[in-house]
Amino acid sequence: MKKILNDPQAYVDQMLDGLVLCHPELARTGDDGRVIVRSRGAVPGKVGIVTGGGSGHLPVFLGYVGEGLLDSCAVGNVFAGPRMDDCMTAARAADGGAGVLQLYGNYGGDRMNFDMAAEMLALEGLQVASVRVADDVASAPAEQREKRRGVAGLVFVYKAAGARAAAGASLEEVAALARKANDAVRSIGVALTPCVVPESGKASFEIADTEIEFGMGIHGEPGIWRGPLRSADALADEMLQQVLPELQLARGDRIALLVNSLGATPLEELYILYRRVRQVLHDLGIVIARPLVGRYATSMEMAGASISVMKLDDELAQLLAAPADCPFWSVR
Amino acid sequence: MKKILNDPQAYVDQMLDGLVLCHPELARTGDDGRVIVRSRGAVPGKVGIVTGGGSGHLPVFLGYVGEGLLDSCAVGNVFAGPRMDDCMTAARAADGGAGVLQLYGNYGGDRMNFDMAAEMLALEGLQVASVRVADDVASAPAEQREKRRGVAGLVFVYKAAGARAAAGASLEEVAALARKANDAVRSIGVALTPCVVPESGKASFEIADTEIEFGMGIHGEPGIWRGPLRSADALADEMLQQVLPELQLARGDRIALLVNSLGATPLEELYILYRRVRQVLHDLGIVIARPLVGRYATSMEMAGASISVMKLDDELAQLLAAPADCPFWSVR
Repeated sequence: MKKILNDPQAYVDQMLDGLVLCHPELARTGDDGRVIVRSRGAVPGKVGIVTGGGSGHLPVFLGYVGEGLLDSCAVGNVFAGPRMDDCMTAARAADGGAGVLQLYGNYGGDRMNFDMAAEMLALEGLQVASVRVADDVASAPAEQREKRRGVAGLVFVYKAAGARAAAGASLEEVAALARKANDAVRSIGVALTPCVVPESGKASFEIADTEIEFGMGIHGEPGIWRGPLRSADALADEMLQQVLPELQLARGDRIALLVNSLGATPLEELYILYRRVRQVLHDLGIVIARPLVGRYATSMEMAGASISVMKLDDELAQLLAAPADCPFWSVR
Repeated sequence: MKKILNDPQAYVDQMLDGLVLCHPELARTGDDGRVIVRSRGAVPGKVGIVTGGGSGHLPVFLGYVGEGLLDSCAVGNVFAGPRMDDCMTAARAADGGAGVLQLYGNYGGDRMNFDMAAEMLALEGLQVASVRVADDVASAPAEQREKRRGVAGLVFVYKAAGARAAAGASLEEVAALARKANDAVRSIGVALTPCVVPESGKASFEIADTEIEFGMGIHGEPGIWRGPLRSADALADEMLQQVLPELQLARGDRIALLVNSLGATPLEELYILYRRVRQVLHDLGIVIARPLVGRYATSMEMAGASISVMKLDDELAQLLAAPADCPFWSVR
């Protein structure tokens, strides 16, 4: 395991230490320090948005706590869901009196803890709604969308819901908008190499030097096929063939697009991928309203990339364009 | 070579294609399209700042073309200096009538081409000054600072000089400020893995699975020692021992700090490193005025990290805090 760390067991907590020292607008709270909140506290009258999930995906999840985005995040171990207590602490910290939306990626462990937390919080009198993002088309067929995993498309859903909450919408409205945003986004990834989970010291999966896994999840969940590496253009084409059909895009439609590195894959390769993606979309008459190219949802040092597409109507376009600011992303 | 690309020979140009499609505020020019300029053109009356260097280091070099930063960049092949013609085209494009500063990392090939370009441009009547950034303490002793390589500290020098030029200073003043900024900055890196140069398909250097190279350059130039991987805290301590002494910092002094990934090393590890760096500096009574943690100067998918420290006086502190905006960094 070739990583810059001290004790693997301290990986998450020392990472969080460094993060809040570097970004004083964020703070740690909770009995185990595993809840990230905005240092200024909840915004009175605003719907709070809580997320959570395993570590090892920066900037996902906690990195999107900020203005016009999220209010708090419950942080788990690497690739492991957060504790129920931390989900509860995160919700209480986000509550500005208008209720709280739990908005997180669709994984069994996360769901169990967030669901239990929501029940307990309801007993405390806190209004809680939940929306699980399920954008990874490789993880289940369209008829079983509720089984799909949440991956990088989460970022667009955070942004849209965060802007809606910042504009003063009610909990019902913010939750409805988050559901609508989730319905409008599709993602797929391709992995070239595994990453190493610090606590175990082991690679997240095995793969040959010349092979890639198409459709693999961000924790190394199996994909659609494993085979020889192909060209960037061929990969881009195949990725678009997976994400576009369900969105039923027509000439003139607008989309938000994210070409995301899973970690080690450098910006240079992302731009080579973007070049082809943009060409294909352009030929289809589809307008990329908001291209993002970079590292927005990673698996530590995994090599690979993902593409996320959100179909935009006027409301989603406006929400994605609204001002927002967090340590890793800023929209003006 | 496990990379997302098409033809290795087309790596740089296809990357540039994607980059300008994604960031319309940047444009390609020059007979080979290897000059990146601001789409709006030169700013009349402002000193132009030109940079250049090999590809494979995004966001360095071209990524810092933007408001309050640079005006143009001559782009070479991966790890190879730009052509003289492109240095000349970049300078002409940056010229707003107040002269041009060539501001780039101290490498032999880059220097030769920029020097020749400066001579030719002088014949055309263009006022040109040159400052080479030489911040890598591992590459030569203090008495031979002019032999040192330029690495991530370049980013702070770009920022300071860019702000000075944006504020209306003369070419002499901007060049003097860039020299002062270069005098105030020190960097050192540690490499865990090599990267692969697409054109050759070969790793930039060989290193054992358990070894790291301390002080290695961003192209795989030899460092100070090669040995077993050690803890993040031990690395942070040794890196600070290399960069701090020459700056002669005293209690109460302010610094700008960059904890930079060379590519594959994830944000999580950078924050673990930052935690220790901040602790040591705090104990010394040194104030980190502007911490940056992220990927600011990379070697594609190389794993490793660097630390850059700039000693600040009021002028440098003010210039680093001035508004700036480029595709990869924004200061408000």
